[in-house]
Amino acid sequence: MGLIVQKFGGTSVGNVDRIRNVAKRVQAEKNAGNDVVVVVSAMGKTTDVLVDMAREISAFPNKREMDMLLTTGEQVTISLLAMALHDIGIDAISYTGWQAGMKTESVFGNARIIDIEKERVQEQLALGKVVVVAGFQGITVEGEITTLGRGGSDTTAVALAAILKADRCDIYTDVTGVFTTDPRCVSTARKLLSVSYDEMLELANLGAGVLHPRAVEFAKNYSVPLEVRSSMVMEQGTRIEEEATMEQNLVVRGIAFEDGITRITLIGLPHIVGTLSSIFTLLAKNHINVDIIIQSATSAGQMNLSFSIKSDDLKDTIDVLTANKEQLQYESIETESGLAKVSIVGSGMVSNPGVAAEMFDVLANNGIGIKMVSTSEIKVSTVVEFEKMVKAVECLHEAFQLSETTDVKA
Amino acid sequence: MGLIVQKFGGTSVGNVDRIRNVAKRVQAEKNAGNDVVVVVSAMGKTTDVLVDMAREISAFPNKREMDMLLTTGEQVTISLLAMALHDIGIDAISYTGWQAGMKTESVFGNARIIDIEKERVQEQLALGKVVVVAGFQGITVEGEITTLGRGGSDTTAVALAAILKADRCDIYTDVTGVFTTDPRCVSTARKLLSVSYDEMLELANLGAGVLHPRAVEFAKNYSVPLEVRSSMVMEQGTRIEEEATMEQNLVVRGIAFEDGITRITLIGLPHIVGTLSSIFTLLAKNHINVDIIIQSATSAGQMNLSFSIKSDDLKDTIDVLTANKEQLQYESIETESGLAKVSIVGSGMVSNPGVAAEMFDVLANNGIGIKMVSTSEIKVSTVVEFEKMVKAVECLHEAFQLSETTDVKA
Repeated sequence: MGLIVQKFGGTSVGNVDRIRNVAKRVQAEKNAGNDVVVVVSAMGKTTDVLVDMAREISAFPNKREMDMLLTTGEQVTISLLAMALHDIGIDAISYTGWQAGMKTESVFGNARIIDIEKERVQEQLALGKVVVVAGFQGITVEGEITTLGRGGSDTTAVALAAILKADRCDIYTDVTGVFTTDPRCVSTARKLLSVSYDEMLELANLGAGVLHPRAVEFAKNYSVPLEVRSSMVMEQGTRIEEEATMEQNLVVRGIAFEDGITRITLIGLPHIVGTLSSIFTLLAKNHINVDIIIQSATSAGQMNLSFSIKSDDLKDTIDVLTANKEQLQYESIETESGLAKVSIVGSGMVSNPGVAAEMFDVLANNGIGIKMVSTSEIKVSTVVEFEKMVKAVECLHEAFQLSETTDVKA
Repeated sequence: MGLIVQKFGGTSVGNVDRIRNVAKRVQAEKNAGNDVVVVVSAMGKTTDVLVDMAREISAFPNKREMDMLLTTGEQVTISLLAMALHDIGIDAISYTGWQAGMKTESVFGNARIIDIEKERVQEQLALGKVVVVAGFQGITVEGEITTLGRGGSDTTAVALAAILKADRCDIYTDVTGVFTTDPRCVSTARKLLSVSYDEMLELANLGAGVLHPRAVEFAKNYSVPLEVRSSMVMEQGTRIEEEATMEQNLVVRGIAFEDGITRITLIGLPHIVGTLSSIFTLLAKNHINVDIIIQSATSAGQMNLSFSIKSDDLKDTIDVLTANKEQLQYESIETESGLAKVSIVGSGMVSNPGVAAEMFDVLANNGIGIKMVSTSEIKVSTVVEFEKMVKAVECLHEAFQLSETTDVKA
């Protein structure tokens, strides 16, 4: 007998039948003798419909009013799920974010949770009720309704699990778990039974954004044991916990990749203090996210600077750099689009310095040229031509024996 | 410069264009130098759609969860209207029922307002903002979300106008005001410029339920000056105030009517104390509303009892009476359906005892038989055959000279 927090995303509660299906998942946990808190998102495309209405009214809808509007989405889901639970004989009560005591900073559209007044939820649990909480939303000390931004419902669930000291926080989604790589690309991709928080952070873009990085960070900070599971298929998912307990001998746990990468190179920058700072402050101010950065000194006190961006940001980036050419003092810009990033991830890497070399070796042996490299304690990222991305993933998946453990197959 | 509370119903905010139209109405009041509080209902058929979803989930949806669900409807409208106001340069802020301090009893689905904590709304008014409040909803002392039941948004508006001591409460609706009778039936029907609260209560079923009786009662108790106006057409509506200031000389102010009436007669009841009480307690317990009641003594210590009900309740009424025949000790039941109620209304009646007689005279001269009669201080109701209803209304409208004043024509 324990306390389980379950979180169901928009797809899992997309219609009345699916809400009934979720009620059965809750019932199963309850019948197993557990207390249950359920966190839900807005149904299916509800949020998109509301956003469209707002944009029809105003080109730049007020952020406070946007939060007022969007939070109705989860409020609909919590009430319907509570009804569905009653209908199968489970005593349940729904709470909006503010009713569940979800206190946030006074920032609309992207507030952070600062505290949870847990008493109300605990009282209802003590009465034997399932508590259904609206994800994604909170309230400021001034009594203003806020939203938590992208991945907000995951964060709500993890934060509630942390404050309530839940035994487990199950994130139900439309995939069955976290995979060694994307099973749609690599047929031998395998579901991982367990990954560490850090690995999960690095693998975040595997499996179509299974879990929001912010929620993973929160879980890590408060040591909340997570499990990513499918709301459609009844099978074991992937546990995310402090130290991955399985497959400790495997150095590389997964291969992440993404396409749509462009490399920008600024030629002939002055090699003086403050150059890098000027460039990246300028880009950040213009909401351009930079990923890998490589700086190389050349002759005559000059340097070249390469960095990778999403190809969608190419036009904006060139515009900003061109408009500030005088200030930045570079000689020319080179760009190369049609690139992709392929990364190997694994917390065992930190004690295995040869892993990066092995990766480069595998890629070279397969005729895949490396455009850029970046390393962290648990990840090595390479930028390659998009045409060679899938081949790179496949041969790395093979070389690091990711399809060969006793784990569940995809 | 004063304070105006404006209320817009579901039809008036039925789509994005209409919400923009409402914003212009608010702007006009604001530009005239007034402070403005706007109360809105859920958009168009939103409530029906939500109710349908709930019924799909559960045959008997939990009432608390139903309130949780339905209150999202107005929350959508307040945020969109606030955005629409911003878009035309009016500073505005939206509040849910609980944010506006609307405290209610702990009854779901049909709560009464017990207090309004007005400080938050007043602070925003003092900052020059238009405050947009969700109608129909409130919060209990325990922090539970409630709804006010039918006509709830009207009540929200009137209650806010009362507590804020507003100079006027304008109820915008889909008719242009209150008429001497239904203009769809009688072409000479005329819009009244002013009626008293009591007259409005009696005329409530004129003009497709312009204003909920509960809101009128509230307005009467707190002397809130109301005005019923069209949200589509820019013209003067009907004022509802303590003493109707116009047309004081007119004894009859309007003719109300409704069809679908059935008369039930219980023959041979024992003429003993408690008989009436037993019957009407029984009907009330079974949610059957009784309108006109006529008791007549017969020979041998017995009596007959007639009462009118809505024809929709006929089956239930017969079932209840039959199931309790032994207890009630009547001999037989007679029913007559296909009836209608026609009433003349006017606060001047109380000092004009000949009005009822005149009404009966007019009906008799036009060959209209009267099945039942009931009188109050400001109303005389008659039950007639449905086929003669419109004729009755027309000849009464004519006889009491209702089309002949200087008021605005329909």
